[in-house]
Amino acid sequence: MKVINGGVTAPKGFKAAGAHVGIKKAKKDLCLVQSDVLAQFAGVFTTNKFKAAPVLWDMELAAKQAKIKGIVVNSGNANACTGEQGVKDNYALAKAFADLACVAADNVLVCSTGVIGFLMPVEKITMGMKGVYSALAYGEDAAVIAAETIMTTDTFMKTVAVELEVGGKTVKIGGMAKGSGMIHPNMATLLSFVTTDAVIAGGALDKALKDSVKDTYNMISVDGDTSTNDTVLLLANGLAGNLEITEDSEDYVKFKEALDYVNKKLAIDIVTDGEGATKLMEVCVCGAATDCDARAISKSITSSSLFKAALFGADANWGRVLCAMGYSGGEFNINNVGIVFRSSEGDETDEIVLMKNGTPVVFDEDIAKRLLNRNKIYIDISLADGCAKATAWGCD
Amino acid sequence: MKVINGGVTAPKGFKAAGAHVGIKKAKKDLCLVQSDVLAQFAGVFTTNKFKAAPVLWDMELAAKQAKIKGIVVNSGNANACTGEQGVKDNYALAKAFADLACVAADNVLVCSTGVIGFLMPVEKITMGMKGVYSALAYGEDAAVIAAETIMTTDTFMKTVAVELEVGGKTVKIGGMAKGSGMIHPNMATLLSFVTTDAVIAGGALDKALKDSVKDTYNMISVDGDTSTNDTVLLLANGLAGNLEITEDSEDYVKFKEALDYVNKKLAIDIVTDGEGATKLMEVCVCGAATDCDARAISKSITSSSLFKAALFGADANWGRVLCAMGYSGGEFNINNVGIVFRSSEGDETDEIVLMKNGTPVVFDEDIAKRLLNRNKIYIDISLADGCAKATAWGCD
Repeated sequence: MKVINGGVTAPKGFKAAGAHVGIKKAKKDLCLVQSDVLAQFAGVFTTNKFKAAPVLWDMELAAKQAKIKGIVVNSGNANACTGEQGVKDNYALAKAFADLACVAADNVLVCSTGVIGFLMPVEKITMGMKGVYSALAYGEDAAVIAAETIMTTDTFMKTVAVELEVGGKTVKIGGMAKGSGMIHPNMATLLSFVTTDAVIAGGALDKALKDSVKDTYNMISVDGDTSTNDTVLLLANGLAGNLEITEDSEDYVKFKEALDYVNKKLAIDIVTDGEGATKLMEVCVCGAATDCDARAISKSITSSSLFKAALFGADANWGRVLCAMGYSGGEFNINNVGIVFRSSEGDETDEIVLMKNGTPVVFDEDIAKRLLNRNKIYIDISLADGCAKATAWGCD
Repeated sequence: MKVINGGVTAPKGFKAAGAHVGIKKAKKDLCLVQSDVLAQFAGVFTTNKFKAAPVLWDMELAAKQAKIKGIVVNSGNANACTGEQGVKDNYALAKAFADLACVAADNVLVCSTGVIGFLMPVEKITMGMKGVYSALAYGEDAAVIAAETIMTTDTFMKTVAVELEVGGKTVKIGGMAKGSGMIHPNMATLLSFVTTDAVIAGGALDKALKDSVKDTYNMISVDGDTSTNDTVLLLANGLAGNLEITEDSEDYVKFKEALDYVNKKLAIDIVTDGEGATKLMEVCVCGAATDCDARAISKSITSSSLFKAALFGADANWGRVLCAMGYSGGEFNINNVGIVFRSSEGDETDEIVLMKNGTPVVFDEDIAKRLLNRNKIYIDISLADGCAKATAWGCD
C-alpha cells in the first residue's frame, strides 16, 4: 500500500468540483463528486433520532441498494428540522444534479452541513450547480477544491488517497472529510466521502465500511455530540478492473487495511482540528476481555472532560484516567491495570509508567512535564483480562 | 415545611466541628459530625469501578445496617487507589473517632476527598482529631465550620436545613455538601451529608434517600465524570420523638418532600459552583412516556458540551437542544416536540418559543439575547408521549 495524491479523484473515473453559489456569504459552499460510471455505495449514518432530510434520503438509497452517479454536498445549511419542505428541497438538489448528469434522482446522494432549522436556498443552489457541474474535473486540483468546499469550522482541509495491488491490478482509494468544531454554533457534523475504483461485491463493500467506521470515526471524540447529519459514504465504481473482491478473500483483508488507513487518517485529522485543541491523544487499550470492553474503556478516557483539562494543563493525572475507566461501563479487573504515557520528539522518546498491576508507580515529574507538553501523546492501558484491544483518539 | 438555620446541626442531637490538621497546607481539612445517640443511616455511593477505601468501608456498614455515632470527613486526600494500606488507614481513622466517642469502629462512617493515589497522613489526622473532637458543638456556627472544612475547589459553602411537622412533633433535616470542580486536578468528588432527628423505619429511610438522589444529585451535570469517592449519607437519630414514619404513611410523603428540598438545594448549589460556570440551566422535560425517558432526555441536554457552549455565548441554539435529545437514548415522537426558553429578572419574565410540534418557530432575537444573558435559564421541553417528567440542572 502506498500513499498517493489526488484525494477523492485519485481512483479511476472520479471527478470533483466546488464553488461558491450563495449559501454561505463568500466561501465555497457547493461541492459535486461524480463517477464516470454508476457506482455501488455503502453508507453509515448518524444514530441521532433527528435525522436531516439528506440523511433520510441517503438511507433510503442505501436500503434499496441504488447505484450512484454522484454526490451533492453543500456547506452552510444542514437542511435539518426543516419538515416536509426540507424533504422536497433535498429531492430538488438530487434531481438537479441528476438532470445535469442524465440519470435518475435515485442515482444521486446528498449531504448537507451547516445551520439547522433554516430552509435551503434551493434556487440559488440549483442555479449555481450548473457552473459547478461544468467545472467537474479529474486530478489533485479538483480534489483540493472539493475538500475545501465541504469545510465549515475546519481550519485545514482533510484529504487522503492510497493505492494497493489487487491481483496484479492497481486499486485506489481516496477520501475527504470535514470535522466537527467544538465551539462554533450549528456546525458539529462529521461528513466523510471515500471513493474507490475497486471491483468489490456489495456485501463486502458494506461490511468493510461498517467495520472500518467502528475502529476509526466511531473512536474519535471531540465534543461528544452526535449530529443530525453525520454521514460516511463509500463509492466503488469498479473501474480498476480487478478480480472481484469478496468477503472471504485475501484481497478483502488488503482492501480493508487500505480503507482503514484512509478512514483513520481522516478521523485523526478531524480530532486534530477539534476547536481549541492543542494536543492529540491516542489511547490504546490492550488485554481487554472483549472488543466492546476495549472500545468502551478507551473512548471513556478520550471523552473525559476532566482528563482533557488535565492534558491541557500538562498534568500527568492518572487518577482521572482511572476514574474514566471506572465509569466506562467496560469490564476489567482493577488489580491488573497498567498505565503508561509516551511521547516522542525527533529521535527522543519519553515514557512514564504511572501504574502497574493496579498500583500507582512513582514517576519522574520532569519527564512527565516534558512529555505532556508535546502535541501528540500516547496513553497505553494494559489489562490482563483477554486479548482484545482498541485505540481511541481525542484532544485536550 | 420551613427553611431554618443550622445546617447539619439543625436536627436535635447533632454536633459538628472542623479544623486544619495538616492534610492540606493551611485550609481546614478535618470535619467531624456526631450524633448524641446512635443513628440509623442510608447511603448512596459512586458507581465507579474504582472505589476509594472510605467508600468500600461505608458500603460495608450500609450492608450490615450498622448504627452510626458519627462521620469523619477529610479533604485534601481521597484515599483512593491506595491498596491494602489505604484500607488500613481508613480503618485507623474510623477507630480513632470511635475511641474518642467510646463506640466501636463499626459505628463510624468515613468520607475522603482530595488527591488520588497518595497515602493518608494518618498520624497527623489522628493527632489532630482530638482537638476537633473536643470542639464538637451544636448550632449554626459549628455547622458553618463543618461545611467550610469539606470544601475543596468550591467557592462557597453549601448548607441547608428545614423543619416540618410530623404528627404534632417538629422534625428537622439538615445538610451540607461539597461540589465537583471542572478544572482543578484530582477533586471532582461529590460528598453530601444529611442529618435528621426523625424517627423513621430503616426501609423508609433507605427508600427516601435512594429515590431522592435520583431526582437531585443524579440530575446534575458539571463535568460528566463520576469520581472514586462520590457519597451521599443520611443519618437519622430519632430524637424528634415523632411517631415512626413508615413507607406507606402520609408522613413519609411529607418527609420525602422535605428531604427532596434539602437535596435539591445542595445539588443546585453544586452546579452553580461548577468551575467556570456563569449560568445555571434548569431543563424540564414533561409529557415523556416514562420517567427513564424524561431523565435521559433532560440530562442529555444539560450534559451537551455544544449546548453548554451555546448557552455561554447567549446563543438560542435550539438545534443543539434537539441534537442532544436525539442522541439521549430516550424515546419520544419527534413530531410533538416543543421547546421554550424562559428567564426572569425582578418582575419581568421573558419567554421565547423555539419549537412547536417538532417545527421551528421564528422568535425575537432581541428577547433571546436578553433572556440568555441572565444567570438562570429555564428550558422547557414538552412531549406528547405520556405524563412522565424530569428536571435536570447544568451549567454553561
